[in-house]
Amino acid sequence: MNIKAIAFDADDTLWDNEPFFLDVEKEMCKILSPFGTAEEISAQLFKTEMANMDDYGYGAMAFTLSLVENAIKVSHGQVPATDIARIVELGRTLLRLKATPLEGVEETLRQLKSDGRYRLAVFTKGELLTQEHKLQRSGLMPYFDNILIVSDKTEQQYTDLCRALNVAPSELMTVGNSLKSDVLPALNIGAWAVHIPYHVMWQHEVIDDFDHSCMFRIEKFSKIIDLLKTNGQL
Amino acid sequence: MNIKAIAFDADDTLWDNEPFFLDVEKEMCKILSPFGTAEEISAQLFKTEMANMDDYGYGAMAFTLSLVENAIKVSHGQVPATDIARIVELGRTLLRLKATPLEGVEETLRQLKSDGRYRLAVFTKGELLTQEHKLQRSGLMPYFDNILIVSDKTEQQYTDLCRALNVAPSELMTVGNSLKSDVLPALNIGAWAVHIPYHVMWQHEVIDDFDHSCMFRIEKFSKIIDLLKTNGQL
Repeated sequence: MNIKAIAFDADDTLWDNEPFFLDVEKEMCKILSPFGTAEEISAQLFKTEMANMDDYGYGAMAFTLSLVENAIKVSHGQVPATDIARIVELGRTLLRLKATPLEGVEETLRQLKSDGRYRLAVFTKGELLTQEHKLQRSGLMPYFDNILIVSDKTEQQYTDLCRALNVAPSELMTVGNSLKSDVLPALNIGAWAVHIPYHVMWQHEVIDDFDHSCMFRIEKFSKIIDLLKTNGQL
Repeated sequence: MNIKAIAFDADDTLWDNEPFFLDVEKEMCKILSPFGTAEEISAQLFKTEMANMDDYGYGAMAFTLSLVENAIKVSHGQVPATDIARIVELGRTLLRLKATPLEGVEETLRQLKSDGRYRLAVFTKGELLTQEHKLQRSGLMPYFDNILIVSDKTEQQYTDLCRALNVAPSELMTVGNSLKSDVLPALNIGAWAVHIPYHVMWQHEVIDDFDHSCMFRIEKFSKIIDLLKTNGQL
């Protein structure tokens, strides 16, 4: 093991994100309750989001556009425009999240930064401005040497990430909550990965659990330090 | 003059873009004609877009969300949901533009690429996925060494661009249609700029015309070759 760079996922790794999307979804279901049960409307929303993925990609504006489309669909065009306005404003709250760092995140990043051994990066998928704003509000920008926002976290994007960080895949360690986005593609290109499970997960990100000799699982962010020490990397 | 890299704006420089936004706006005004004149609705849309700029930034999804909000506003909540659905679908067409290269673009890029003297980049602001898709559809990707999509084209972003391209500002030449976004910030950091006026311009991008010793103005893309030759750069 010879790690030279660590790439951190942002949403639900550095700060809470998915719970706010779930809150908005719940509110939207309340607004649309004349037109169906929350289960029906949420199930239809997921279908709408998946159908829109190629056009809209991942992010809060994408989500808001799907919310609007779905509201019209489940109400068979009967939803009042004033309710659509409320849904648009619900979506806007997701663009204004404070992105408060999760427990242990700031101290851990400070320690890694002051150690100076690693190139530290944020590697996040989603909308450019939305992710930039959250990063700025989080106060974590000073800890990172590189910030890379991509439309999707494919193996190709991980390969490009290694090039941007000027490291070989075997010198990269990724840290994140999603096996599908943060772990699997990293392992597939020959990088190391640290999985920190988060308490909720968007169903689109869920894949079967697995083990891998280059994957570590820790229960909280600050354990990264122990993990690196144990492996002679700190 | 010692140019080492050329950064090309994309929308309305490499391919048509703004006319499609204007077409959508015109269609939206037709849909909303029971609620006001096209002039009134368009003027209100521009206000809505400006008020949303901090949250949504530049791009087709941003525009669509503003269209929806504005439709509800100008109709005082009376617009039928089915009309909002039509507006959302109009917005979607902007995510699916073919991005056919403008006259002379492909031949000029081919010539610059085969000459091999310059690092060629796309430097465009907007939404990540939307811009990536247009680039892919344009067929122009093979001509570029770097593709940089940013949320805004500020002087800071031009400075970062120079770092990414590994050139000094005085070794960079930008090419684009917008004095505000493609020319002025580039000149301000000490780069060279080529202005290619386009026949329509979003009012948010309009600034007073000016002259500058490091700015060239050409009437069509292919004139870049002449310009470089005249200045001993090709």
